Amino acid sequence: MHTGPTNTLTDVRGIRVGHHQVCGDGWLTGTTVVLTPGGGAVGGVDVRGGGPGTRETDLLDPRNHVERVDAIALCGGSAYGLAAADGVMQRLGAAGRGVVVGPRSGDTVPIVPAAVIFDLGRGGEFTRRPDAGFGAAAFDAAMSEAGAGPVPQGAVGAGTGAVAGGLKGGVGSASVLLSGGTTVAALVVVNAVGATADPMTGELYGARFGLPGEFGLTVPSEGPLPGSGSAPALATTIGVIATDATLTKAQCAKVAGVGHDGLARAVRPVHSMFDGDTLFSLATGAEPGPDPAALHELLTAAADCVSRAVVHAMLAAVTVTTPAGTWPAYRDVYPSAFAGT
Amino acid sequence: MHTGPTNTLTDVRGIRVGHHQVCGDGWLTGTTVVLTPGGGAVGGVDVRGGGPGTRETDLLDPRNHVERVDAIALCGGSAYGLAAADGVMQRLGAAGRGVVVGPRSGDTVPIVPAAVIFDLGRGGEFTRRPDAGFGAAAFDAAMSEAGAGPVPQGAVGAGTGAVAGGLKGGVGSASVLLSGGTTVAALVVVNAVGATADPMTGELYGARFGLPGEFGLTVPSEGPLPGSGSAPALATTIGVIATDATLTKAQCAKVAGVGHDGLARAVRPVHSMFDGDTLFSLATGAEPGPDPAALHELLTAAADCVSRAVVHAMLAAVTVTTPAGTWPAYRDVYPSAFAGT
Repeated sequence: MHTGPTNTLTDVRGIRVGHHQVCGDGWLTGTTVVLTPGGGAVGGVDVRGGGPGTRETDLLDPRNHVERVDAIALCGGSAYGLAAADGVMQRLGAAGRGVVVGPRSGDTVPIVPAAVIFDLGRGGEFTRRPDAGFGAAAFDAAMSEAGAGPVPQGAVGAGTGAVAGGLKGGVGSASVLLSGGTTVAALVVVNAVGATADPMTGELYGARFGLPGEFGLTVPSEGPLPGSGSAPALATTIGVIATDATLTKAQCAKVAGVGHDGLARAVRPVHSMFDGDTLFSLATGAEPGPDPAALHELLTAAADCVSRAVVHAMLAAVTVTTPAGTWPAYRDVYPSAFAGT
Repeated sequence: MHTGPTNTLTDVRGIRVGHHQVCGDGWLTGTTVVLTPGGGAVGGVDVRGGGPGTRETDLLDPRNHVERVDAIALCGGSAYGLAAADGVMQRLGAAGRGVVVGPRSGDTVPIVPAAVIFDLGRGGEFTRRPDAGFGAAAFDAAMSEAGAGPVPQGAVGAGTGAVAGGLKGGVGSASVLLSGGTTVAALVVVNAVGATADPMTGELYGARFGLPGEFGLTVPSEGPLPGSGSAPALATTIGVIATDATLTKAQCAKVAGVGHDGLARAVRPVHSMFDGDTLFSLATGAEPGPDPAALHELLTAAADCVSRAVVHAMLAAVTVTTPAGTWPAYRDVYPSAFAGT
């Protein structure tokens, strides 16, 4: 069991990722689009946070009709940021992607579930939030050549304004190639009321779930995090788990649910009333459907990919200062953790 | 037990309703905004259709944090129409309404759950669908003097392009004043794969639930509806139930759920895999909270208001012809039903 070629979400063949963000002049926010292959991917969702901001999640209930998702929009801007999904829909609709609902093959309704994080005001101006143009720009980035390559991590896309337990959060991703040839991967936007690192020791909770040689971190010697009580009053971690396995819609819902276990191992506390933690899942179906043992392995891997993606987000973060404050990066607060790397 | 003064949703004091629609030149769609009093109303939702298009429904789960809703957007345009909610959010945010999330009292995130109906292409052009401007215009209509008056019914707002079982659908509303002084009311956008009238007799299913003297319809003599198999392939009935009672968020969810029973009595079949039937509920809290017997009465009234609102929608409809087709109104197909009125 080892990581895929890039150890990011795009290791699932056909999945593309695009970021768009604006920083400075009061801005510190963005949007990330996860684009599925033509024809879509079977989708699922599990909403576990107490303060979610979501769109098109009801259709993902396994009881409901539509099975395939064209794209998922992860957005800054709290509920305002749901507007970014409009831009993704416009782009997909213009390309004739989505559920065919009219007499012509191009008469489609694209399926674009979305979730948001709370990052309002972190750039200094409360009203600087993503709109439909952010979604369109992130879609264009996903469609560019780089959209199929390694996913940029850190303060990009929907993670631009992300903060986690007083440290800078952001986008993280991870993948694994299972023994049977199935790839599982996760992309998360880490923005949590809770902490990703043990406040007493500085150890990243999720690091213990790394694949051999993945992190190489040591226990930091800096001791307790100063000001570790300064967690944001509102937060939310969101993300996408993708696999090339063939899954039913109900199995996709299960993947999203177990993915939250990976979040629970990497963020503490999590799923609070001040987080809207939401995970989506996508199954492209290029590989066969799993037997019960293989599904068990896939679910376990999905949770671990989420935990590992959280760690990658924290490791990719850089310290950010805006008129609203300074959010130090893990690597600047705990440089000794990297002594062995 | 009798209707409120207008027999529409605005009989619940503080609730305002605004419509915006565009007809002609390929258009036949619109948006309806239900606006709550300042400070909002406790909200609930129940999604029972198999093909829903929704936004901000997860936050209405009674387990979750936010209790109060600022407005509900009902939209034409299938999932594209969810963009209308952006315009409502912009208006509310500019007015400083919503959950206060920043250091200043005006730093708010308005709570605007939304649902859509499928009406794409009914005006002749597939790409003519509501955007954020529709939501803003419907909000402005709700804020106008007329917004507190009797709710316009028929082919208005989100009901502009609505069709139900081969007949013209649209917006309908109804209210009731309960013995204890509580008002309950419903507004629905009737757009269903199923029929609202018995195809053999032409009787409106919901008419039997009218208050004394409310409808005065007779059994029509026209016989079976010609072409009654021409139901739309995709539809969706959506609506809002409002009351001035003080309800918990969980009780609001129950109201929305029982409201679907009223839909089941008035539309057959309903909640199909080709409908995204979704009902919201709002409790303004001006009247006291109900004891168990009063809650029972309130729930029963909520279901009946939904059934009655469906009938009012069908009675308010007028025959509409566009380049995409003709949808005859109930009153034009069954004129004999009105012999006694």
